[in-house]
Amino acid sequence: MALCAFYAVWGLLLEVAIAFGPVPRITWEHKEVQLIHFNESKVSNYSTLLLSEDKNVLYVGAREVIFALNAVNIAEKQHELHWKVTEDKRTKCAVKGKSEQTECRNYVRVLQQLNDTFLYVCGTNAFQPTCDYLNLISFELGGKNEDGKGRCPFDPAQSYTSVMVDEELYSGTSYNFLGSEPIISRHSHQSPLRTEYAIPWLNEPNFVFADVIRADPNSTDGEDDKIYFFFTEVSVEYEFVGKLMIPRIARVCKRDQGGLRTLQKKWTSFLKARLICTIPDKNLIFNVINDVFILKSPTLKEPVIYGVFTPQLNNVGLSAVCAYNLSTIEEVFSKGKYMQSATVEQSHTKWVRYNGEIPNPRPGACINNEARASNYMSSLNLPDKTLQFVKDHPLMDDSVTPMGDRPRLVKRDVKYTQIVVDRVRALNGTIYDVMFIGTDRGALHKAISYENGMHIIEETQLFPNFEPVQTLLLSSKTGRRYLFAGSNSGVVQSPVAFCDKYTTCVDCVLARDPYCAWKPLEASCIDIFKEGERERNWIQNIGGDASSCSDKVRENPLQHTFKHGSTAELKCSQKSNLAQVVWKFKDDVLRVESPKYRLLEKALLIFNLSEGDSGVYQCLSEEKVKNKKFSQVLAKHVLELKKMQHTTVGPTTT
Amino acid sequence: MALCAFYAVWGLLLEVAIAFGPVPRITWEHKEVQLIHFNESKVSNYSTLLLSEDKNVLYVGAREVIFALNAVNIAEKQHELHWKVTEDKRTKCAVKGKSEQTECRNYVRVLQQLNDTFLYVCGTNAFQPTCDYLNLISFELGGKNEDGKGRCPFDPAQSYTSVMVDEELYSGTSYNFLGSEPIISRHSHQSPLRTEYAIPWLNEPNFVFADVIRADPNSTDGEDDKIYFFFTEVSVEYEFVGKLMIPRIARVCKRDQGGLRTLQKKWTSFLKARLICTIPDKNLIFNVINDVFILKSPTLKEPVIYGVFTPQLNNVGLSAVCAYNLSTIEEVFSKGKYMQSATVEQSHTKWVRYNGEIPNPRPGACINNEARASNYMSSLNLPDKTLQFVKDHPLMDDSVTPMGDRPRLVKRDVKYTQIVVDRVRALNGTIYDVMFIGTDRGALHKAISYENGMHIIEETQLFPNFEPVQTLLLSSKTGRRYLFAGSNSGVVQSPVAFCDKYTTCVDCVLARDPYCAWKPLEASCIDIFKEGERERNWIQNIGGDASSCSDKVRENPLQHTFKHGSTAELKCSQKSNLAQVVWKFKDDVLRVESPKYRLLEKALLIFNLSEGDSGVYQCLSEEKVKNKKFSQVLAKHVLELKKMQHTTVGPTTT
Repeated sequence: MALCAFYAVWGLLLEVAIAFGPVPRITWEHKEVQLIHFNESKVSNYSTLLLSEDKNVLYVGAREVIFALNAVNIAEKQHELHWKVTEDKRTKCAVKGKSEQTECRNYVRVLQQLNDTFLYVCGTNAFQPTCDYLNLISFELGGKNEDGKGRCPFDPAQSYTSVMVDEELYSGTSYNFLGSEPIISRHSHQSPLRTEYAIPWLNEPNFVFADVIRADPNSTDGEDDKIYFFFTEVSVEYEFVGKLMIPRIARVCKRDQGGLRTLQKKWTSFLKARLICTIPDKNLIFNVINDVFILKSPTLKEPVIYGVFTPQLNNVGLSAVCAYNLSTIEEVFSKGKYMQSATVEQSHTKWVRYNGEIPNPRPGACINNEARASNYMSSLNLPDKTLQFVKDHPLMDDSVTPMGDRPRLVKRDVKYTQIVVDRVRALNGTIYDVMFIGTDRGALHKAISYENGMHIIEETQLFPNFEPVQTLLLSSKTGRRYLFAGSNSGVVQSPVAFCDKYTTCVDCVLARDPYCAWKPLEASCIDIFKEGERERNWIQNIGGDASSCSDKVRENPLQHTFKHGSTAELKCSQKSNLAQVVWKFKDDVLRVESPKYRLLEKALLIFNLSEGDSGVYQCLSEEKVKNKKFSQVLAKHVLELKKMQHTTVGPTTT
Repeated sequence: MALCAFYAVWGLLLEVAIAFGPVPRITWEHKEVQLIHFNESKVSNYSTLLLSEDKNVLYVGAREVIFALNAVNIAEKQHELHWKVTEDKRTKCAVKGKSEQTECRNYVRVLQQLNDTFLYVCGTNAFQPTCDYLNLISFELGGKNEDGKGRCPFDPAQSYTSVMVDEELYSGTSYNFLGSEPIISRHSHQSPLRTEYAIPWLNEPNFVFADVIRADPNSTDGEDDKIYFFFTEVSVEYEFVGKLMIPRIARVCKRDQGGLRTLQKKWTSFLKARLICTIPDKNLIFNVINDVFILKSPTLKEPVIYGVFTPQLNNVGLSAVCAYNLSTIEEVFSKGKYMQSATVEQSHTKWVRYNGEIPNPRPGACINNEARASNYMSSLNLPDKTLQFVKDHPLMDDSVTPMGDRPRLVKRDVKYTQIVVDRVRALNGTIYDVMFIGTDRGALHKAISYENGMHIIEETQLFPNFEPVQTLLLSSKTGRRYLFAGSNSGVVQSPVAFCDKYTTCVDCVLARDPYCAWKPLEASCIDIFKEGERERNWIQNIGGDASSCSDKVRENPLQHTFKHGSTAELKCSQKSNLAQVVWKFKDDVLRVESPKYRLLEKALLIFNLSEGDSGVYQCLSEEKVKNKKFSQVLAKHVLELKKMQHTTVGPTTT
C-alpha cells in the first residue's frame, strides 16, 4: 500500500519525465527475448572485446583469461588461454597494500589485432602491467612479457583506451603505480611518443575511447591519418564549487616524430578541445563523457562521432547522446583559437583566449604538403617557436559543438554507459542511424531519430542481474548483424532486432524499426536484412503510419460462463508502452472508472456479475502516432451467465 | 496498461529516490483535511501577506485589491480596498508594449506595518510604481501617491523584497522600467540610501527575502541593528557553460548615513557573501535560493536562518533546506577576507582573494563603540580609503557555510518555494524546529530533524489546483498556531497539525509529530498546544517508539457470506506511506503473490472461493521505526461460504 501511494506520487511526475526523452515503446524483459550468453564459472570482468569480422571470431579479455568465441554463436568457445599472475608477484602486490584476491590479479585491458597471426595483448598483472603477443593459430602467448607501462593501467579500476594503427599501439592510460601520471602514448620501436606530464596537457583524465580516422585518399593536401582520444578531465578553464569535469577530444598525427630539441620524444601534434553537449536554455550540462562510437560508412560524406554523456552536477539520473561532424572537429583544431594561461595576483591561474600572434607552421598541425613545401618534412624539422607554443597551448579555445547544436537524445532516469551505431537503409531507401545504447543497469536502448524527434524502439534487458554494460560491439556484416555486450559477469550476444516478436502488421509497422517489415504473404514481421531480396509488397513505415495494413480481426473469442454475483477476470495484455488499453462491451467503450470494474495491468475485473453483463467484451490497444490513432483488437471475450442449476457445482473458470 | 508499464519503470527508481530524502509519512489530499480558503472572484495574485498578531488580522495584497481578514478565520473578510490603475495610465502602459489585460494593472507588492494606524503599501501601478499610506481605521488610502521607484518593481514579474524597520522601508527590487537596474535601498526622509549601480554590487539579482536582526541589547560593543537581504545573482567569481547563479546574503547597517564625498547617499556598509548549500561528495550544488525564514526565539542563543534552495544546473526536481547560524554569517562579514577583481590579458576579469592591506576602520563594518572611540561617530566621518575599498570590494571571499556543513534536507522530485519554521517544545521538554515547506505544486511538507535524519511528518495539498505556494506565513501565538499560504488564486489557512486524524495511540505516536500526543482518558490524539495544561499520562515519542501504547484490538469484524467460485473483496486502507500492509488468514501471514489473491491499493481480492477460504482475515499495518516494528490491526473480516440454496438469489455483498 505504501508502494501504491508511492506510485501515485510518481504518477504526478510522468509529465516531467515525458519532457525528458521518449519512453521506450517496448520493454523486453530478459527472458522474453532470445539472447546468447557466454560466461565461465570463476571468471569475471569480461570487459575487453575484440571482433574479427573476417574470421568471425569474438575475442574476450576477462580476468586472467582470454577467450576466442564463435561470433555467430558466442556460446561456442573456440579457444581459451589462462594468463595468470605468478604467486611471487601477487605476494609483492599485496605487500604494497593492494587486495590479493581482487586487485593483484591480471585484468586483460588491451586486446588488439596486430596482424593476421597475432593479437597484441596487455594485462594489469598485479600492478606490473605486461604485454605480449598472442599467436592466433596456437592460441598461446609468445612469452615476451614486455613492460606494459603506458599501454595498460596498473590498477584495474583505472581508465584505459587503446587503438592499433598500422601495427603501432596508441593508448591512453596512467603511467605509474599510483595512477597519478596520465599518459597518451604510442608504442613504436621506431618512434615512441608520449604526452608531457603537465596539467595543461592532461589533468586527471578518464579515458573512454580512441580511434584512428584516415586521411581522405582522394585529397591532394597530403594530410596525415589522425588518432583521436576521448576523455573527461578536470577543467582548467572553468571554476565552480569543487572540481569541474570537462569532456575532451584530443588528437595526434600518425606521422608525428616528436621534436628535435623541444618536445623530444613527445607529441608535437597533441591538441585538445572541449566537447559541448548541453541545452543552455534548460541549464542542462552533460560534462562527463562515458563512451564514443565513430560511425564510418561509405554512405557518409564524413565520419560522425557519437558520444554518450551524463552530467557531473546534480545528477539524479540523466543521460544524453550528442553527435559531432568530423569537419567541425577538424575546423576547431586546424583553424580555432588557442587558450593560454595567465597568472593573476601571483597565485591564481586563469585560462583565457590567446589573441597574440600564432607561429608558423601552425602549432599542433600535422605535416602536410604545404608544410613540406616550406621544407618541414617531418615534425623533427619544426621550429622551436612552433614547438614551444604547442607545448604551452595544447588546449583550444574553440569548442566542438554537436550537430544541430543540441543533444540527439536526452533521457531521464537512466545512465547510459556505452554506444554503438548502425547505419541502415530502410525499405524506402531512407538511411537511418540506429543507436544502440547500453545502461548501467544492464539494459540496451535502441533509438532512431525521426523528423527531429527521437523514437526509442525498444529497451532490452541484456543482463538479468542489472549490472552495467561495460563494453558494446556491433557486427554489421550482411546477414550477421549482432550486438555483443560485456559486463562483469559475462558476454551477451543479441540480434539487432526482434521482428518476429510482432505478430500483426499494425504491430510490425508501429514498431517503427528500420530492420523490420511486414511480409503479407507469410503474414509475418521479418528482418529485411536477413532476406535475400526485398519485395515490393512488404510494409514498413518508420513514421509509424500503419494505414496500409489490413490485419484480419481475430475471430476466436474466449467463452466464459459465470455465476450470478461472482467476479470475472478477462485477460488482455499489451506490450507497447505508448499504447492505451480500451475495453469495449457490446461495441461501446467501457467506463472502467466505475466501481463495477477494475482495470489491472493484464486483465479487467468485473464484479458482482448479473444478467446485464452478458455479452461480448473486446480489449483494444490504441496507439497514437502523429495524431493518427491505430486500434487493434488484442482479445475478445464472451461472457455468459450460468443458468442456476439445482446442484452444488465446482468453481467456474475465470 | 501503458501506465502500468510506466509504473514498473518508476518502481525501479524507488531506491534512487529513497537515497534523496525521506518520503512524507502521510499524504493528505486536499479534501481530506479541513482548510479555510479565501478568494474573491475576479481577483488574482494573492502574493503579499502581512500578519498583525496583535490585532489578529491578516492583510492580503492581491491584484488591485487589499484585504483585511480575520486571522483566526480568514473566510471572514473585515475590509477590502480597491486600488486600481487609472484608464489613462493603463493606456500609456499598453502603448509601451505591455499587456493591458495583465501587466498594466496594479499588483500590490509592499504591505508593511508603519505604525498602529498605518500600513505602508506599494503597487506596480501599470509600470509606474506608487506607494501610499493605508489608514487601518478607515481602511482607505491617504492619496499621497508617492513615487514607488526603488521600493516596488515596475513589472509584476520582477522579484522584490522589503522590510520595515523603525518606520523606514528597506527594499530590494529594480529601479527602472526595463528591470535592468537592480537596487537595495532605504526609503527615509532623513537619510535615503541605495546601492551603487555596478556589477560587483548587484549582478542581475533575484530578491527573495529581507529582515532585520537587532543588535544584542546586552552587548557592550555598541553594535548596530543589521538588515539582511537574500537573493540569487549572476556569479562573477565562478565560470562554467552559460551564466552561473549564486545565492547571496547581503547586509547593511541601520545607522548607515552614507559617505560624505565617496559613496554619498550610498551604503557604506553594504557587504555580500556566498551562501553555500552543497553536498560536494555527491556533486549536488544548490545554487538558487528561493526563500528564507529567520527563526528568532527566546530559547535560541542566536537567530537561525533557514533557506530553501534548488539547483540551477541539471535540475530535474531536487530541493534542499540549509540552515545557518547568525554567528557564522557575522564572522564572515566582520573577519572574512574580501574578493578583488583583476584584469587578465586586457579583456578578462577574474575575481580572486584580496591579500593586501585592509584599511581601518574595516570597510563595510557598522559604526560601533570601537569606531566611535576612534572618533568615527557616523559613516559620514569614515575615511575615503575605507569607503573606496568597500565600494570596490563589496564581495567577501569567505563563504557562509551551513550548520553541519550540509543541507538539513535534500528531497528529490519536488521544488520547494517557501519556508517557515516553528520552534516547539515537545512533551518531554525537547525543542524541535518544525519546518513547513511549500512546493511549486501547492503542497506543504512538514518536517523535523531527529537524530541527524529528517522525518517528513506529512504532506498536505493546500491548493487543489496544484499551483505554486507563493507566500507562506506562520502565526505561532499560543493557542493560535496557523499557517497562511498565498497563491495566484487565493489564500489558505491551515492548522499546524492534524492530530485528530490519528485514531489510535500507535498511529498518534508513529506520526512523530511534536504537536500531537495521545490522551489515554479520552482515547484521542490531541494537539498539546491547544490544551490548558500538559498531563503526565499523555503519550508522545518523537522517535516513534509506540511501545507505551495499549490500543485495544478492534473487535467488530465484518461478516461476509460468499458463494462457491465467486470473488471476495476485503477492504483495508492504510494512510502511512512508511507502513506495509500484511494480511493474515487464521493467524498465518497470507502469501498474496499466489494467483489466488490480488493485493490492491485498498483491498484484497480472493478469487474462486471454496470451503477452505472460510475464516478470519486480518489486515495489519506494519511500520518500522529504528528497527522496532509496530503492528496494528486495521481491519478484520470474517468470510463464510454460503450454503447452496435451491433458489436463484441476487448478488451477494462483497
